[in-house]
Amino acid sequence: MTVADRWLLPDGVEEILPNRALQIERLRRQVLDLYHSWGYDLVIPPLVEFTDSLLSGTGSDLDLMTFKVTDQLSGRTMGIRADITPQTSRMDAHSLQRQGPSRLCYASTVLYTRPRHALESRSPIQIGVELYGEAGLAADIEVISLMLETLQLIGVDRPQLDLGHVGVYGSLLECAELSFDQEAELFELLQRKAVPELDSWLTANVSDPEMATLLRALVDLAGGVDVLDRARTLFAEAPAEVELALDELQQTVDSLQACYPELNIYMDLSELRGYHYHTGIVFAAYAQGVGQAIGNGGRYDHVGEGFGRSRPATGFNMSLQALAEIATNTPIPAGIYVPVTEGDELRDTIAGLRQQGERVVCGFPGQQPDYEELHCDRQLLLVDGTYQVKPV
Amino acid sequence: MTVADRWLLPDGVEEILPNRALQIERLRRQVLDLYHSWGYDLVIPPLVEFTDSLLSGTGSDLDLMTFKVTDQLSGRTMGIRADITPQTSRMDAHSLQRQGPSRLCYASTVLYTRPRHALESRSPIQIGVELYGEAGLAADIEVISLMLETLQLIGVDRPQLDLGHVGVYGSLLECAELSFDQEAELFELLQRKAVPELDSWLTANVSDPEMATLLRALVDLAGGVDVLDRARTLFAEAPAEVELALDELQQTVDSLQACYPELNIYMDLSELRGYHYHTGIVFAAYAQGVGQAIGNGGRYDHVGEGFGRSRPATGFNMSLQALAEIATNTPIPAGIYVPVTEGDELRDTIAGLRQQGERVVCGFPGQQPDYEELHCDRQLLLVDGTYQVKPV
Repeated sequence: MTVADRWLLPDGVEEILPNRALQIERLRRQVLDLYHSWGYDLVIPPLVEFTDSLLSGTGSDLDLMTFKVTDQLSGRTMGIRADITPQTSRMDAHSLQRQGPSRLCYASTVLYTRPRHALESRSPIQIGVELYGEAGLAADIEVISLMLETLQLIGVDRPQLDLGHVGVYGSLLECAELSFDQEAELFELLQRKAVPELDSWLTANVSDPEMATLLRALVDLAGGVDVLDRARTLFAEAPAEVELALDELQQTVDSLQACYPELNIYMDLSELRGYHYHTGIVFAAYAQGVGQAIGNGGRYDHVGEGFGRSRPATGFNMSLQALAEIATNTPIPAGIYVPVTEGDELRDTIAGLRQQGERVVCGFPGQQPDYEELHCDRQLLLVDGTYQVKPV
Repeated sequence: MTVADRWLLPDGVEEILPNRALQIERLRRQVLDLYHSWGYDLVIPPLVEFTDSLLSGTGSDLDLMTFKVTDQLSGRTMGIRADITPQTSRMDAHSLQRQGPSRLCYASTVLYTRPRHALESRSPIQIGVELYGEAGLAADIEVISLMLETLQLIGVDRPQLDLGHVGVYGSLLECAELSFDQEAELFELLQRKAVPELDSWLTANVSDPEMATLLRALVDLAGGVDVLDRARTLFAEAPAEVELALDELQQTVDSLQACYPELNIYMDLSELRGYHYHTGIVFAAYAQGVGQAIGNGGRYDHVGEGFGRSRPATGFNMSLQALAEIATNTPIPAGIYVPVTEGDELRDTIAGLRQQGERVVCGFPGQQPDYEELHCDRQLLLVDGTYQVKPV
């Protein structure tokens, strides 16, 4: 390979250069401080784990996303984490073993074998929270609120909240008695909202016309919060679990609207992202002008089972790089350049300035300072026998 | 695998639980703020790179330490970084292309195939700095000073600084005209300070008795700063490069002693850690009662060559986990518990407390608070019609 090629990075793998790195670092601190103030404890899960634990209870999607390496010490297969949520489940179930609710947060890099969609980073810094041990709706509402607070904090104006509940689809599916392959086909058609294909598929595969109508109705149940009323009418004859799910959605909407009267809520009952993983309310946040969701989350009550302790769970995560793209950035203050000189007094002056929060960059013998490259707008000079900060 | 095994982590791989994670996060911020105040720009290098660039100019040690995976998009081999320094070299040489000195810092996780010594983490968070583009001693002195400032900041009392210079050994070796295998044998004997074996090896392999004496002398050249005087006498007839290296060490010692009069300096001219990589002054910091070095660094002027731009370079790095072990920890303030209630006024009160930096944890319906688990020492109660913070 030639010198010219050697700096190429793999597709979807990025390096983060000075100014952007500092913006991301600031954002990371602001967001983690917010989570801390809500009682979420920071954890730092390991970068690798044995795949047996890393992928426990998570399904094949995550498996395919996870790079595997062989542990030279044990000969066992390890995975480089592609998601942090299962790791925190293990920590909650095994390492912490708290009796009451457990609130955890994190900000760590994950790695995907392939980008999940075009232009996506294969190595985002995932920042998010998980709340274990509380099955009630209050937990769902708390984590959704915290996601909204995160967006407010970083200056996202009027985000859109997508709300769904996998219980609606799940309960219908249980009654429909489909094979594994049929389920997969239906899932795919619903995700694409491919109405003509869905119609013919339902005719061919679902003999009960009432059930076919119910499943067909899902595609249209997306829009403003009035979707809930339409769903109630359509699903009046559906299993009781469907009604329960609709009640939960209604309460969540009411509670969020009381706290965030300006909130733009989009209901989507056919949104099934992570369906095999989630168990209740699922949600996503969108910013204006950004196609992909900037935050995703939902309830996943059974992930801890693999670790011998099934705790109710809900949470969300975001990509710190994606947040940085939409955050309101404040400019980075310029520093003070010190031409090369020596002496105790100068040293004390520099130390004092740094302690006041100034960025002080020392020159080297013979250096011709490039103030722009150094990001300095002032210099420290000896004027009339004292060191003084002067504009360059 | 049984449920009981599923929470086992690979040897040398650790998860970091709440309190410790917060201490590490605090330390990370303090140290990065220090580096920022000295003009070091934060960068976030990628977790993976093609091995061609990741391992360019670094030698076989790092290769063996690096996990490899196949990139599914290109079919090429990628490595999960086991060191961040070569990544910053690439960033300096290619991505930044600054004309003047470039100061970079980082705090990111690396991964080793095997621990470098017993009990070491295989996945430390490396925190450190690199200074590119300045060949003069002032650069070496700046980075060593910054390492000492880091230790001071985190409360390490009277650290020991080990100083060496690979130029002494390197120049002698050039004159000795040894084969590749002989070099490796000599290197190994010197690292072990295996004197009797070294004596017989020199007799067998180095025909020039003067050269044998000079090489033999290296082992004894360790101790206080007076080692430099002894070395000058012993190496009076050695190549000029040896004298140059001793001069550089002397100037470094003088300059550091002027700034840090209490500093405990240990000279070691046979310390050759990273010899194939380093090119000038090398250094390490030790804390009392800790066997392994807590910080390592040195000059490595040729790493950028592989990227078509060879810039002088020096820097150091430390493990954030190891720093946390020896840092003076301040206790984590306890929070305020809010029994479940509702209303706009309560919401505003909670938001206000959080904005003041308080940690406010909300209760759930039916929750019996375990204040210790929640780490709360106060609660928010409605007393005489107003919300008040009271001890629990």
